[in-house]
Amino acid sequence: MSFTIQNVLISEGEGYRTVDVQIQDDRILAIAPNLEVIGTAIDGTNKLLLPGFVNAHTHSSEMWQRGIIPPVPLELWIAELYEFTPLDPEQAYLSAVGTAIETLLTGGTTVVDHLVLIPGKEIETIEAAYRGYRDVGIRAFLAPLIQDEALSAGIPTGGDEVNHGDYVRPTQATLDLLQEAINQFHRPDERVEIMVAPTGIQLCSDALFEGCIELSDRYNLNRHAHLLETKAQKLLAEEKYGCSAVQHLKEIGWLSEKTSLAHCVWLDDSDIQIMAETRSTVVHNPLSNLRLGSGIAPILKYRQAGVNVAFGCDGSASNDSQDLLEAIKIGSILHSVTDFDYHHWITPRQSVEMASLGGATGLNRADQFGSLTVGKKADLVMYDLKSLSMLPRTDPIGLLILGRPVNVVSHAWVNGKQVISEHEICNVNVDDLKEKLFDRSEWTPKRKSIAVAETEARYRSVMGLPGTTIGYS
Amino acid sequence: MSFTIQNVLISEGEGYRTVDVQIQDDRILAIAPNLEVIGTAIDGTNKLLLPGFVNAHTHSSEMWQRGIIPPVPLELWIAELYEFTPLDPEQAYLSAVGTAIETLLTGGTTVVDHLVLIPGKEIETIEAAYRGYRDVGIRAFLAPLIQDEALSAGIPTGGDEVNHGDYVRPTQATLDLLQEAINQFHRPDERVEIMVAPTGIQLCSDALFEGCIELSDRYNLNRHAHLLETKAQKLLAEEKYGCSAVQHLKEIGWLSEKTSLAHCVWLDDSDIQIMAETRSTVVHNPLSNLRLGSGIAPILKYRQAGVNVAFGCDGSASNDSQDLLEAIKIGSILHSVTDFDYHHWITPRQSVEMASLGGATGLNRADQFGSLTVGKKADLVMYDLKSLSMLPRTDPIGLLILGRPVNVVSHAWVNGKQVISEHEICNVNVDDLKEKLFDRSEWTPKRKSIAVAETEARYRSVMGLPGTTIGYS
Repeated sequence: MSFTIQNVLISEGEGYRTVDVQIQDDRILAIAPNLEVIGTAIDGTNKLLLPGFVNAHTHSSEMWQRGIIPPVPLELWIAELYEFTPLDPEQAYLSAVGTAIETLLTGGTTVVDHLVLIPGKEIETIEAAYRGYRDVGIRAFLAPLIQDEALSAGIPTGGDEVNHGDYVRPTQATLDLLQEAINQFHRPDERVEIMVAPTGIQLCSDALFEGCIELSDRYNLNRHAHLLETKAQKLLAEEKYGCSAVQHLKEIGWLSEKTSLAHCVWLDDSDIQIMAETRSTVVHNPLSNLRLGSGIAPILKYRQAGVNVAFGCDGSASNDSQDLLEAIKIGSILHSVTDFDYHHWITPRQSVEMASLGGATGLNRADQFGSLTVGKKADLVMYDLKSLSMLPRTDPIGLLILGRPVNVVSHAWVNGKQVISEHEICNVNVDDLKEKLFDRSEWTPKRKSIAVAETEARYRSVMGLPGTTIGYS
Repeated sequence: MSFTIQNVLISEGEGYRTVDVQIQDDRILAIAPNLEVIGTAIDGTNKLLLPGFVNAHTHSSEMWQRGIIPPVPLELWIAELYEFTPLDPEQAYLSAVGTAIETLLTGGTTVVDHLVLIPGKEIETIEAAYRGYRDVGIRAFLAPLIQDEALSAGIPTGGDEVNHGDYVRPTQATLDLLQEAINQFHRPDERVEIMVAPTGIQLCSDALFEGCIELSDRYNLNRHAHLLETKAQKLLAEEKYGCSAVQHLKEIGWLSEKTSLAHCVWLDDSDIQIMAETRSTVVHNPLSNLRLGSGIAPILKYRQAGVNVAFGCDGSASNDSQDLLEAIKIGSILHSVTDFDYHHWITPRQSVEMASLGGATGLNRADQFGSLTVGKKADLVMYDLKSLSMLPRTDPIGLLILGRPVNVVSHAWVNGKQVISEHEICNVNVDDLKEKLFDRSEWTPKRKSIAVAETEARYRSVMGLPGTTIGYS
């Protein structure tokens, strides 16, 4: 399959240029004015063509709980999330489809799904998400979320003796499960790859990290985890290792150019140096960090230290959406509050590069996608500059990043295959998806979490917060 | 004109209730299940009905420059803004229409337009915006932006002797102009009111404030101004008055229950007490504050002190959109970074109340609109809960506020008159607007501001920033 986009605006230096773009099979063949049309001709007049962005951290099944968890910090939020987690693999399929669609409609062509596994149906969950992403046609990195410690171990003890009990599955069984996922679903040729992805230091043993490293090396898999999302996790790392979490992860060999780490809110300057030296990637999830009160990740410091930064939406229960352009916007303008010198602030063109090439770099694929470059994969998004939210005409990239674009993606391709045409998703029926999401849910504003009630007193005590009353109802 | 909305979800306590709502002429006549249909029947099934929100601070003509001004602080941003300000009243008409449409499509039914006046065509500018808001049918508070000091006076001197020169128009001429605007365009019966609105202490003399107070008292007009948006303004107030800006505004009688003040980022605890005592309203513009690096307004402190808070988008050149739901979301979740105790964080239902009743209170009209109350004006918005971004079904208000709603407003009414029907704007042709915005603009990413170049060295020196190079190109 070949096609040629004609008369489309692309970014060049600090300005724009109107060109034609030839795509042959899965790759960009040529970019220049007045090219011969190969294959189908696509009119790019009054449109902007950018490389697809990477939604570099999400948890697709959280879609089932978006909007419902009250404003509480991560440690309480996750207790409620797990208490009401979906248990049917068909839900995992539908939320993967929904996550892919919202990502595509907001400029993304790749998603990293740190996939929460349904207990007892782990492989079925991975299969469902795999099928969802294949059906929509987005490029997906499936990162089964694993741990080998019980949820309560994620809260610092404050020096008390606490017995968390065993996790439901032994470490080796989890690694076996991952091996099975690799065997069945690691399909780079079909645009779906498995990543090794322990949830993070708060709930994982060194043995689990080391088993993942071994699989990563053997199969050339990318590595993913949460890292120091909250202040509580920073305290926990000090209790657990007697050193910083980053120092410990370096020592066990987790950090590398194949490693992307979500959040990275509570790193200090020496941690940041380690991130730079090991060529690890920070995935910035600004909306989730604000929604959960995790803090502001020191993104300007990362950039100054040469650490690669990508953007993620995080799961829909902490965002509560998969609008990648919204995450990019807030992740770009938020940092003025941490550094008063505007010479350090992120410009819209830098944001675009972080979201595209930064995302690809975090997946160790900067040579394959993430920019409009001849020979690279055709992961392309075309924005309609005649949408109301892109008018009047000013600086299209400035308005795309700093504005609030609505329905602006008119066409998108992944690996040279069309996934959006004339603002419509091509490969799945969105009305059908909506009906299924509607039918499988109900309006339940008043649900009460027993797990939060059980956890809150200890959390408030360890974090030095007054009182123990549940603060929401 | 009467109509009856049937089977619509409304908020009740912490839950929801399905009711019918009768509207007669401009008012809500009854809210209860199984009402008799009066007038047209509107199907509210699978929809949520909320009072319309107030976009409590914007500058409509900034729409012409949205997306183009680089990330710089207010004092440099405004120099560029004014250098390229639109000069044709027809542009002011189109941007008022665009501002009204984007506000309506994101839940707003009232807009406060702190309107930048075209030099030499001040009355024509006001007439154009007045016509735009009447054509769309939104409720509008037109606040002609006035000042009587030159732009350079807005930057602290740092102790140096600086001659700013005279402003182009004497104070009395400006007050005469305002009198003329009141005579011609203060039309409460037509849903358009004039507000007195000096831009703020940074560019206005006491004589101008006092003249505005006199007009406000005589015609019962609301009062509006910017207040301590930036650190530079806080320094300036100390230079100018030898006390805080809030203390000074209290002394001259500016603060009242008719007074709403945009931004309020740099107030201290004693200032906050004065705001509470005088029953003044804070208008929170979180996106603009982040985009311009102004800081984070202490919204949780205002709420704890009993100060009324409303939300605004601010002008589109500092936002860069008029998506009111986005401003509400970010203005709600941002404050977790200022107070770690989640018991103080803003819940989605509190956000809705701030955006609706808080907005009406700031306009001294809480008795007339801002809630679903029998006898109040029918300023109503109906949200489609079968939109993809509102699925799956969880807590509709939670998802509306914390999610990223796209095309969710299916119907809206202002003063009982329909302004949105089946997701479409009723009273103006949006395609025609888009064509005009397109035709009157061009993609100009590389424009250079002479005014910024002239201002930057002094700004950096006064604010203690190193170097003097222009940080963007």
